[in-house]
Amino acid sequence: MNKTLKFGPEFKEIEVGKIVLLAEDAPLRLDSGAEISSFPLAYQTYGNLNAEKSNAVLICHGLTADQYVIGRHPVTGKPGWWENMVGPKKPIDTEKYFIICPNVLGGCMGSFGPKELNPQTGHPYNLTFPVITIADMVRAQKLLIDHLGIPRLFSIIGASMGGMQALKWADLYPEMVVSAIPIAAAGRHTAQNIAFHEVGRQAIMADPDWCEGNYLDAKKYPAKGLAVARMTAHVTYLSEAKLARKFGRKLQERENVTYGFEADFEIESYLRHQGASFVDRFDPNSYLYITRAMDYFDLGTDHGGVLANAFARSKAAFCVICFTSDWLFPPAESKLLVHALNATAASVSYVEIETDKGHDAFLLDEPDFARTIAGFLKGVGRKEGI
Amino acid sequence: MNKTLKFGPEFKEIEVGKIVLLAEDAPLRLDSGAEISSFPLAYQTYGNLNAEKSNAVLICHGLTADQYVIGRHPVTGKPGWWENMVGPKKPIDTEKYFIICPNVLGGCMGSFGPKELNPQTGHPYNLTFPVITIADMVRAQKLLIDHLGIPRLFSIIGASMGGMQALKWADLYPEMVVSAIPIAAAGRHTAQNIAFHEVGRQAIMADPDWCEGNYLDAKKYPAKGLAVARMTAHVTYLSEAKLARKFGRKLQERENVTYGFEADFEIESYLRHQGASFVDRFDPNSYLYITRAMDYFDLGTDHGGVLANAFARSKAAFCVICFTSDWLFPPAESKLLVHALNATAASVSYVEIETDKGHDAFLLDEPDFARTIAGFLKGVGRKEGI
Repeated sequence: MNKTLKFGPEFKEIEVGKIVLLAEDAPLRLDSGAEISSFPLAYQTYGNLNAEKSNAVLICHGLTADQYVIGRHPVTGKPGWWENMVGPKKPIDTEKYFIICPNVLGGCMGSFGPKELNPQTGHPYNLTFPVITIADMVRAQKLLIDHLGIPRLFSIIGASMGGMQALKWADLYPEMVVSAIPIAAAGRHTAQNIAFHEVGRQAIMADPDWCEGNYLDAKKYPAKGLAVARMTAHVTYLSEAKLARKFGRKLQERENVTYGFEADFEIESYLRHQGASFVDRFDPNSYLYITRAMDYFDLGTDHGGVLANAFARSKAAFCVICFTSDWLFPPAESKLLVHALNATAASVSYVEIETDKGHDAFLLDEPDFARTIAGFLKGVGRKEGI
Repeated sequence: MNKTLKFGPEFKEIEVGKIVLLAEDAPLRLDSGAEISSFPLAYQTYGNLNAEKSNAVLICHGLTADQYVIGRHPVTGKPGWWENMVGPKKPIDTEKYFIICPNVLGGCMGSFGPKELNPQTGHPYNLTFPVITIADMVRAQKLLIDHLGIPRLFSIIGASMGGMQALKWADLYPEMVVSAIPIAAAGRHTAQNIAFHEVGRQAIMADPDWCEGNYLDAKKYPAKGLAVARMTAHVTYLSEAKLARKFGRKLQERENVTYGFEADFEIESYLRHQGASFVDRFDPNSYLYITRAMDYFDLGTDHGGVLANAFARSKAAFCVICFTSDWLFPPAESKLLVHALNATAASVSYVEIETDKGHDAFLLDEPDFARTIAGFLKGVGRKEGI
């Protein structure tokens, strides 16, 4: 199935890749109680599935990424978001593994999300789209994996919100998960993280061009609000040390401050660019829905307040990875995961990567991080005969 | 001089307290090169000046506070922002000291700021108001202190931006400063702090009701943008530990999440309240100007890149105070100040208060903090015969 999507304030039309219709026979029931059926899920695959169907790796993307892990992105024209980790002879080796990356439910890169047309009205769902959860995203992915005829996943790998999905997979479908690598993740979204998400949502909703969510019909676009949301979030993805090292108080192509509100400092110019480029590739309502899904994530509460119970049925090998300077998903949250996994006698490795690059370190060149993933997959592969 | 000010989206008219016209004989030259004359500075005083004029304490307020340190605030009707620190028998004792707190230059509580009327046009200055610096704020305060006939200040006390002012006083007018207490401050604004300020400014400027700064003439008000700016800033004033302890993932007056975008979590409701109440008492353009002044602050660069040189002429006793969980003005920045002060053989005490309350700890009940200030002032007083 092919599909054209509209993006950004200019509503550029772009064709995205593989899309499958799921839940055609029976509807999928969401956590909210809503049911969805015959809904699209967009995905990319890299490498080949072996005859035994035992080399499938599911990559779960974070809040604002998508299925274009590697290769030219059809909307931005830029390389994929995980080029340094995925590819031939890379840690997640496309010559060895069959890699699947779906765009999450609620996303805006072809999967079922708020900007999809409601066939009953002929208009986008907008805020009538059901609020989804991390578990709902995983349920949709499970339908895709079933559709592809894959009985078990050799590994599920994800960072940040992707790590939440990996954890929820181990909870919901323990028999299907051979190994899981939650990176810079947590068993729940903290108050501080909810706070920053709420600021972002309020920035979008404060923009009159958001039109109470109906900007597509109104032919408007809350670009300014979305840019502010992105700028706020982007500060949280970096560490103070990284910001000090990369920008400090350096001025932007000028000798002196201008005594005005132009971007005197490099960090201001950088942030404005981050905000402006984001609006060309991301849907404002999707941003509301996906941040909400993260806020709602609390794996322990799903199990009577005992996080360990989420892993009670799992036989997966876990590799929990975090970054020392990540203050959004700090090592302390990863350690809580490890304690819970230990309490169920799970097989778990814990690796804290020493870096000053903050939460975004998972996207960057971190040799220890790359080696950790390559080594763990090799180890699991030896046991599984891959 | 009495004066009525307009506040908030409803332009409520409120009479503020003492206001003096400064620079009537000669204009004040600002860092930007602009000159201002006959400009108003609003201030409050508490206690009585002694016959020797040796017991004056200048309190410098932070970004969004004002001259109403104690007593009922004329705009909000609430108590002053430092009731637990200032008053009879309190650490900053109104029975012993004559306390002066001016509203900063660029502020909106009666001092010369962007919403003042330009006599030449009959309209508010708005963005034609000159961009000011921390040094400019201090120069205006110096004129006030001269006007009050006070030769030396027994102490200058300020937290956050107020601490920046205390430091700049010691630099610009060393002969007038007997002691200084910079609290939760720094010798320069860091990249991360500039970044968060820039997000706030962009949120205000993104609001179409900002009208390119001319909302007063347009009879509009960028309340939504200002609220988002305040929400972002407010998250940075707290620590993750405090947020976890106070709010965690607690729901707001409900048993379950609502699967919507209402304020399900207490932290969301709290932030929305912070944003909404701020717009009733603060001027959006003032917020732009004052955050900019903080961004520009870099005491070392004012002295050829050597922070210690800023204190070379000072004979003041310093008490540098910070809070362990303050990530906006972290202890590391206060230590840089102490190193610079040590390098000039200054008299300096350094106190790191153990607390999980973050940057806002200076506004809250922290017994060790209160004792530190009381003790330091007593010690300086013994030497000075107060």
